[in-house]
Amino acid sequence: MSTKEAKQGYGQKIASRSEDFPGWYNDVVLQAELADYSPVRGSMVIRPYGYALWENMQARLDVRFKATGVVNAYFPLLIPESLLQKEADHVEGFAPEVAWVTHGGNEELAERLAIRPTSEAIVMHMYSRWVQSYRDLPLLINQWNNVLRWEVHTRLFLRTAEFLWQEGHTVHASDAEATERTLLMLETYRAFIEEDLAIPVIPGVKSESERFPGAKDTYTVEALMGDGRALQSATSHDFADHFTRAFEIEFLDAEGERRFGATTSWGLSTRTIGGIVMVHGDAKGLILPPRVAPVQVVIVPISRKSEDAAAVREFVETVQRSLGTDLRVQADFSEGKTPGWKFNEWELKGAPVRLEIGPRDVAAQSVVVARRDTGEKQSVGLDALSGSLVALMETMQTGLFESARQFRAENTHEVSSVEEMRTVLDEGRGFMVGGWCGGAACEAYVKEQTRATIRVIPFEQGDAAERVCIVCGSRPARRVYIARAY
Amino acid sequence: MSTKEAKQGYGQKIASRSEDFPGWYNDVVLQAELADYSPVRGSMVIRPYGYALWENMQARLDVRFKATGVVNAYFPLLIPESLLQKEADHVEGFAPEVAWVTHGGNEELAERLAIRPTSEAIVMHMYSRWVQSYRDLPLLINQWNNVLRWEVHTRLFLRTAEFLWQEGHTVHASDAEATERTLLMLETYRAFIEEDLAIPVIPGVKSESERFPGAKDTYTVEALMGDGRALQSATSHDFADHFTRAFEIEFLDAEGERRFGATTSWGLSTRTIGGIVMVHGDAKGLILPPRVAPVQVVIVPISRKSEDAAAVREFVETVQRSLGTDLRVQADFSEGKTPGWKFNEWELKGAPVRLEIGPRDVAAQSVVVARRDTGEKQSVGLDALSGSLVALMETMQTGLFESARQFRAENTHEVSSVEEMRTVLDEGRGFMVGGWCGGAACEAYVKEQTRATIRVIPFEQGDAAERVCIVCGSRPARRVYIARAY
Repeated sequence: MSTKEAKQGYGQKIASRSEDFPGWYNDVVLQAELADYSPVRGSMVIRPYGYALWENMQARLDVRFKATGVVNAYFPLLIPESLLQKEADHVEGFAPEVAWVTHGGNEELAERLAIRPTSEAIVMHMYSRWVQSYRDLPLLINQWNNVLRWEVHTRLFLRTAEFLWQEGHTVHASDAEATERTLLMLETYRAFIEEDLAIPVIPGVKSESERFPGAKDTYTVEALMGDGRALQSATSHDFADHFTRAFEIEFLDAEGERRFGATTSWGLSTRTIGGIVMVHGDAKGLILPPRVAPVQVVIVPISRKSEDAAAVREFVETVQRSLGTDLRVQADFSEGKTPGWKFNEWELKGAPVRLEIGPRDVAAQSVVVARRDTGEKQSVGLDALSGSLVALMETMQTGLFESARQFRAENTHEVSSVEEMRTVLDEGRGFMVGGWCGGAACEAYVKEQTRATIRVIPFEQGDAAERVCIVCGSRPARRVYIARAY
Repeated sequence: MSTKEAKQGYGQKIASRSEDFPGWYNDVVLQAELADYSPVRGSMVIRPYGYALWENMQARLDVRFKATGVVNAYFPLLIPESLLQKEADHVEGFAPEVAWVTHGGNEELAERLAIRPTSEAIVMHMYSRWVQSYRDLPLLINQWNNVLRWEVHTRLFLRTAEFLWQEGHTVHASDAEATERTLLMLETYRAFIEEDLAIPVIPGVKSESERFPGAKDTYTVEALMGDGRALQSATSHDFADHFTRAFEIEFLDAEGERRFGATTSWGLSTRTIGGIVMVHGDAKGLILPPRVAPVQVVIVPISRKSEDAAAVREFVETVQRSLGTDLRVQADFSEGKTPGWKFNEWELKGAPVRLEIGPRDVAAQSVVVARRDTGEKQSVGLDALSGSLVALMETMQTGLFESARQFRAENTHEVSSVEEMRTVLDEGRGFMVGGWCGGAACEAYVKEQTRATIRVIPFEQGDAAERVCIVCGSRPARRVYIARAY
């Protein structure tokens, strides 16, 4: 056992976050038991602690969806090849990533079935049967499901063949209404990611080369990770009539005219869990935003002498009861581990607050409250505890967001040439903000020279009028965020 | 339009429940918009109304699971063929029903991957990595997911290739503990199905021929449908050490000895939605148990003169506010439909209570409350409404359960020979209760002669001591429930 491990009193160790960010990421995900590798190529197991985080995320995002009139449903996993081929760009974009079912039982199938890489094709087919009149519109349906995209290079949460997500699909009477819904869902993601996950994002539109196959426009919320790389955290697609024409989704309008509708789709996946890890983690492991943390408050009982154990346990249970249902609380009575070991374990697992309760605390009817973010410790009396912890959750939630925003500000660099980009990438990290003429050639040149890509054309264009393209120098230019990305 | 349809003032019609039960079932499922056929063989779409019912079921069952210490996780969709083959009975039972993935992208796979028909193989593989010490036990994990079993003859909800379910998988230190957990989960299903779905069930054990592939014992809760056929509504399997030996799930016990654990699995699927339809429906359509109904109270505004519309709408909104968050309420302001049409539509969809609000109700500050189960109508003042409806939900929940129990009592027949079974099946319907020696030959004979099968050997053995086998006449005999089944 190394000195470091012995000092920690802890059998596991994690790689250094500052020196080996990818190694640190994998160690944290595995040792905090968020996920594990599986024997199935490109697929991972989401372990109970990681899944509880996902359940909390789902619950909060689902409420936000439903507040905009969205309802949930479930569409089939398998999509006949012929259906996938109906929209030309769509099939071209996804075919190389599809896993194919060719046999059912002992029988070879007449037509191959795709495991859904996304569900536009099957959903649009059903919508063509359900949409007849303007009274059937808008149709606002979401599903929480698994999808599969055959990937060669995979990373826990960030890129896996199978992943969990939600995909919403809507139909509207006009292109304008579809655009409005696309933007409403992007704003829903922005609010969820910033308010519930405490991750600041840049909302805007993608360049043509990064559009979803079949979309007229793809909107995104981009976040900056702790290593200075960008993560696309959710996307919202405006399809105009591309899919309604391909799938013949027509309706009779109020005047009795047949018209094509317009559609949207939008998704957020378990990938975002990787974002939470990479934005909020530190050298000790995870720090989970209180609103979605599976365990907001962990209680570690401390009784070195066995005669103290009963009194400590009784007080721990009193504390648990006093915290009621306002907070997600877990008391760690597991055997065979020292309190110090448990401290490290729960710091690695990112529980926002730890309560330490020993014989002296029982005597004083108080507990030691330790914050995961700042490490501060404070003794709080039982009477004031519940209110104090509920307030502390909000303080920490806001604090995590502010820290991430400050990190992003410190790691966002103005660039006016590809040369300057190289300097930033050699000496630093983060978002680069520059001008772009909108041309595909200039975009490709940036990527080829720096391996960084145009992540988003933000809604906030600010000083764009004064900018020129960092590649070709022409005007007008758009203000864009560029970064190396996951 | 037929006279019947004109009378209903309703553009759709459903088959007669008494004359054509299967036709009635399909009509109700489709027209109430619980589900729809899909272009994918054997797969269906669960529409928003049906999915909302499933969400309510999930929420209530999940709380019951968590109260027993169970946590949720997510395991991969695809299972390598070699892993599926580790437990001999298991692969033999499921191989004929497996859909196989043979290609990923443009590449042919070296090993075929099964779309999970159930997840024992992949879960047990992971457990062999996670279980090291007695301190890791019991391991109590559930997942809510989709599975696929290649079926030739499919029926909406009751038998589809892909379906949604939950599957729980636990590991214990001893066979006795595993048996205890198997029975605890069966009791959890019994309580959920009887209390939340208002469906009475017979809990007990399956005969050897009906066991889950690989199980030592399979337990079941069997329900009687409105046409007299049985539905297996959930199962709980006791595996003893069959899977821990096949997958090498060993742990060090407190004395430092290596031992094999014992496992269980248990599941309930969207099939149960078919049970709700078939147990509680009537000639007009669905009747949903209030605890899981997506819409518990539907409000139908009635304003024949357009000058009444504003006052009616305002009062409807007042009523909605007064019902607050205690009830799931929906006001049906949809255009182009008469109130009578809406009455029929919501009767078909099985909303427990309808509120009718017209100008006279506005004047009297009261509403007409119409019960879906009895058809009774009553005027209730606004002040008393909320309390009255909350109480009515419980009355109806209990009433549905009691009606179903009475129906079952009336359709359960004592039989002492295969001849008597034939008479029951020719002239009547339902459960038959008889004696069975336990022999496979007698069980097969019953099935061959009557197409009815031994559904369950109930825990309640009552007068078994006095019984003889209805086929061979030998003693001792077990008391068994026999029926034709879905």
